Amino acid sequence: MATLVKKFGGSSVATPEKMHGIVDRILRERKPGDRIVIVVSAMGDTTDDLLALAQQVNPEMPKREMDMLLATGEQMSIALLASAFCAKGQPAVSFTGPQAGIKTNDKHTKATIEDVSATRVKQALDEGKIVIVAGFQGITPYGDITTLGRGGSDTTAVAVAAGLKADLCEIYTDVDGVYTADPRLVPQAIKLKEITFGEMLELARLGAGVMQPRAVEYGEHNDVAIHVRSTFHDVPGTIIRREYTVQEKGFVIRGIAHDINVAKIAVRGVPDHPGVAYEIFQALADANISVDMIVQSARVSDNKNDILFTVTQTDLADATSVIEDLKDKMHFDRVDLEINVAKVSVVGAGMLGNPGIAAGMFGALAKAGINIAVISTSEISISCLIPEKDVKKAVNAIHDYFFPQGKK
Amino acid sequence: MATLVKKFGGSSVATPEKMHGIVDRILRERKPGDRIVIVVSAMGDTTDDLLALAQQVNPEMPKREMDMLLATGEQMSIALLASAFCAKGQPAVSFTGPQAGIKTNDKHTKATIEDVSATRVKQALDEGKIVIVAGFQGITPYGDITTLGRGGSDTTAVAVAAGLKADLCEIYTDVDGVYTADPRLVPQAIKLKEITFGEMLELARLGAGVMQPRAVEYGEHNDVAIHVRSTFHDVPGTIIRREYTVQEKGFVIRGIAHDINVAKIAVRGVPDHPGVAYEIFQALADANISVDMIVQSARVSDNKNDILFTVTQTDLADATSVIEDLKDKMHFDRVDLEINVAKVSVVGAGMLGNPGIAAGMFGALAKAGINIAVISTSEISISCLIPEKDVKKAVNAIHDYFFPQGKK
Repeated sequence: MATLVKKFGGSSVATPEKMHGIVDRILRERKPGDRIVIVVSAMGDTTDDLLALAQQVNPEMPKREMDMLLATGEQMSIALLASAFCAKGQPAVSFTGPQAGIKTNDKHTKATIEDVSATRVKQALDEGKIVIVAGFQGITPYGDITTLGRGGSDTTAVAVAAGLKADLCEIYTDVDGVYTADPRLVPQAIKLKEITFGEMLELARLGAGVMQPRAVEYGEHNDVAIHVRSTFHDVPGTIIRREYTVQEKGFVIRGIAHDINVAKIAVRGVPDHPGVAYEIFQALADANISVDMIVQSARVSDNKNDILFTVTQTDLADATSVIEDLKDKMHFDRVDLEINVAKVSVVGAGMLGNPGIAAGMFGALAKAGINIAVISTSEISISCLIPEKDVKKAVNAIHDYFFPQGKK
Repeated sequence: MATLVKKFGGSSVATPEKMHGIVDRILRERKPGDRIVIVVSAMGDTTDDLLALAQQVNPEMPKREMDMLLATGEQMSIALLASAFCAKGQPAVSFTGPQAGIKTNDKHTKATIEDVSATRVKQALDEGKIVIVAGFQGITPYGDITTLGRGGSDTTAVAVAAGLKADLCEIYTDVDGVYTADPRLVPQAIKLKEITFGEMLELARLGAGVMQPRAVEYGEHNDVAIHVRSTFHDVPGTIIRREYTVQEKGFVIRGIAHDINVAKIAVRGVPDHPGVAYEIFQALADANISVDMIVQSARVSDNKNDILFTVTQTDLADATSVIEDLKDKMHFDRVDLEINVAKVSVVGAGMLGNPGIAAGMFGALAKAGINIAVISTSEISISCLIPEKDVKKAVNAIHDYFFPQGKK
């Protein structure tokens, strides 16, 4: 007997037929005594349709009202899915985020879950019901409806699992697990049986988009194992957990991430005196722009510095204008922009204190003839900025080096 | 400075353009200091669309889940309408039925409002906001979402007005008030300035469908004056209140109602002994069938009785089968059915103790050559069952008699 929380996305409940498909699968797979909670998103394009309607009424809809509107999407799908279970003779009951006890702060449209009081969910499970919970939504202490922002339903599932002390939180998705690299780029990519929260978060931060970081963080803080698995195929996926329970031999590196939403900004000829880096990055922080890789290099010729850093392409225009505004004050020579760049990264908790990893990565890139513009490292990752056109070649070269067994 | 609750139906908020139309009208008509609450229904066909979806998933959707589903319709319209006000620079906030403190019993799909705690609504009004409340929905003591059934948004509006001790509850509708008769049948019908709760309820019971009886009852119990007025024309409508404040001269009769959803059942040749009427009407009550007019007449020839009564046409099949089941036990001769009948009624609190009213009505029908099959009376009404084909002629004849001034 296990308590299981299963999350299905909007495409899995897009039509009445698909809902019945989920019902059949869950009733077929359930073991006697299993206590099952299902978290669902809004049906298919519902959220987009609501956003379009909102736009027509008022392009600048107040965020509180936006949450009021968007929360209806999940409320529809939970009622219909509960009804689909009942149609098959399985008692089921639906709860909105507020009813399921998902307490959030009041940051409308991107609220954070602060607590889950799963009393009603537990009670319904005790009554032998399958419980359907609306993903993506919660309630403020003041009684207002909030939404959790992108990937919020994953976070709801993990939070409900934490509140119930569930045995497992299963995230059903359109990929069938976490791979050593993006299988669309690397045909030899290997599906991992397990990965740690920390590695998964680092992969997500570096561009591997299987799970939203918030859901993984919530799992880490509450020690909820998360099984990422396929909606379409009934095969085991990847379990994200605190520590490995199986040893996947020879994997020091757990994954290779890439990110093409990167732009490089080079501030050339910055006078070499204390505080210049502070001045640049404080101005960017004030404008709420996240900076990723940073390199400062000294020019021997004139005793000036070049400061290079990367931002997302989305932030490029804002970042450039912040830097240009500093020109008169800081007397640097010029700003160079480059958007045809990408970041490739290797991630693995075991790489710390393993000096061969960095050398291996750089060697693989060198052998493939790929130039490295910037390097940055964290405790569990190494990233290189390379030309965007070389991404596929780079990820494959690195994968071939670290996962030769994947070439079978 | 007045506190006003205004209710708009689904067709008034069917599109973003119509929502902006409501916003413009309310901002234009508002007097300085007015505190305004707006109760709205679901946009246009939303409820029908949701019902169709529910039907596809499970033709016998559990009622609790049906309420969960249907409540999304109003939640969408309140969020969008609040946003439409904000687009015009007018602060506004939306509340679901539960947030607005609409407490109901747990009779899902036709719940009854038991209490309104308008704390949040009051507070938002104090902050200078226009408050938008979802009609048709509430919350059980257990925290489940309920809907109020047909006409529920009217009841929400009256209940919120009661909770706020509002000066007036305005129901905007597709008719511009309460008329002495249905204007589609009687071109000379006169719009009433006022009508009492009791008369309005009696008119509704007898087939005049301007307001749902529940909303009127709620108004009566909480002494909330209700202004029924047009969505389309900015002219005064009819105020439903406890007592008249203006004297509309010469109106003893306040309205003429008609109802064609009537069927007559005649049980012929019932043996004349005590308890037979009890047996018939108890059996009907056990089957949850409401009986309206009842007449028993003795046949001199064989000392047996004929018992005639009316039910709605919707209940005719059930009622007939109940009666047929009694045949062996009760030994009556036969059952005759008649569906081509209609009921015309006159209503007026002032008719009690005015013997001329009944005579006037019967005389008007006689002069028009219309046969009366059954007559029934209450304290404030007289009803006649007539052939359905004569309804228009009958209502006009009665109207001409009681409202000669309408012929101007």
